[in-house]
Amino acid sequence: MNVTIIGLGLIGGSLALSLRQHGLARRFIGVEQSPAHARRALELGLVDKIEPDLAAAVAQADLVVVAVPMDAMLTVLPAVLDAAGPQQVVIDVGSTKQALLAAVAGHPRRGRFVAVHPMAGTEYSGPDAAVQGLFDGKTVVLCDTEHSDPDAVQLVEKLLQALPMRLLYLDAAAHDLHTAYVSHISHITSFALALTVLEKEKEEQRIFDLASGGFASTVRLAKSSPAMWVPIFRQNRPNVLDVLDEHLHQLQHFRELLAREDYDGLTRQIQQANHIRKILP
Amino acid sequence: MNVTIIGLGLIGGSLALSLRQHGLARRFIGVEQSPAHARRALELGLVDKIEPDLAAAVAQADLVVVAVPMDAMLTVLPAVLDAAGPQQVVIDVGSTKQALLAAVAGHPRRGRFVAVHPMAGTEYSGPDAAVQGLFDGKTVVLCDTEHSDPDAVQLVEKLLQALPMRLLYLDAAAHDLHTAYVSHISHITSFALALTVLEKEKEEQRIFDLASGGFASTVRLAKSSPAMWVPIFRQNRPNVLDVLDEHLHQLQHFRELLAREDYDGLTRQIQQANHIRKILP
Repeated sequence: MNVTIIGLGLIGGSLALSLRQHGLARRFIGVEQSPAHARRALELGLVDKIEPDLAAAVAQADLVVVAVPMDAMLTVLPAVLDAAGPQQVVIDVGSTKQALLAAVAGHPRRGRFVAVHPMAGTEYSGPDAAVQGLFDGKTVVLCDTEHSDPDAVQLVEKLLQALPMRLLYLDAAAHDLHTAYVSHISHITSFALALTVLEKEKEEQRIFDLASGGFASTVRLAKSSPAMWVPIFRQNRPNVLDVLDEHLHQLQHFRELLAREDYDGLTRQIQQANHIRKILP
Repeated sequence: MNVTIIGLGLIGGSLALSLRQHGLARRFIGVEQSPAHARRALELGLVDKIEPDLAAAVAQADLVVVAVPMDAMLTVLPAVLDAAGPQQVVIDVGSTKQALLAAVAGHPRRGRFVAVHPMAGTEYSGPDAAVQGLFDGKTVVLCDTEHSDPDAVQLVEKLLQALPMRLLYLDAAAHDLHTAYVSHISHITSFALALTVLEKEKEEQRIFDLASGGFASTVRLAKSSPAMWVPIFRQNRPNVLDVLDEHLHQLQHFRELLAREDYDGLTRQIQQANHIRKILP
């Protein structure tokens, strides 16, 4: 099988490595806007060749993976479907789904497209961030598969199960709601935590000296790139605003309890937060 | 050297394991209020014996480590100093310092006490949470050492350097300020994030399904115990309220930018947050 990967960053690059590792594809063609990233992807062996022309890259593939940021995705995915034939399969790997599925809803090749969101990543980006095994054992969400051709869904299921990933089926609206709750808000808290500490702690050496593992893990996501995350927040804005309001409410409640020295109340809040232990052991 | 550890939890237990591993002490005596924890500490080999009487436990030690939660610390540390002789050395391992140092300021044995805060930990507690190597390469803060006898400071420095830890000297006020910025606030954001997700996401299975590494690391500290953290927030209340207000301000600003669709503003905020990469590579 030939695979064309459009966007050779963390996710596109890691997927190429993982498909190759499991012997699921023979030849990898890359499409990459940044000449530096394209060169680096070749050096790292993420792909076998770079194809500058999108339509030519699609024409050579059995499977096309669109792995660009969500703003570019809204124009790149329709262009890929324009170029796709009736036998080829196209997937995205994007973090929001409603806007994207609306953008291709009436497309004559809609059936060849399967909407995929692997719940895996790191705070790094670009081809150097690609790692083998990134998807190993992780959950992958497939959205609105009833609008995809059954043979396309079957191929994608077979590949993802072989990585191996755990398949989960959600409609696009449910996907965007739940990822706002479980993924997008943690990025916002982490960005805001970094800004807080950078604002209060003017002595950078002190941050370095005093940062224990706890701080480092909480602030880790704040290293994530705006090019990836701003389009996600934009496309999932109503859900993100909703969960952000709940988060502000929880923090304000915590603040009030501490301000009025209600330590029993703080204890109860923390006990309730500890409930996350049962869900994420 | 004989070491008495008062409080056989994560920090006390890990310190016993680390001192033993490096051959820095021969015999470990434990004092532990919880009979179950005392039994478990013996089973795990954290200490060689349990001594029910505090004064007797202190009398047998060259070094006494007080590793109880910060509320108990305010009464246990003075009691330990009451029992200590002129040659023994006493350290705490607490996360706040001003209240504690005020509590022993006029004590006749104040010179035998060295205030120590190892910047290391996990979200777990109790003797089963003790791990060898927890302090390896981490920073440890020594506070107000000018109020400790030079021989006591030298012994403590020698032991901590041998673990090996990186020594940092701060006065108690600076310690409490900087730890609020770099450590205490990350626990609050994590508790609040857990409460947010538990409130919004009523389907617990969804949290489990969709929690990627990013969410798991951001919410990890929310597993931390209220018995440890409420006394810390209480004793460092002004600094914690101050940094919490800044954090609320940052989150509200982020919310406003998203609400009014100022995506350039959001990009700039995230770029600024990314600055944490330079400090914590």
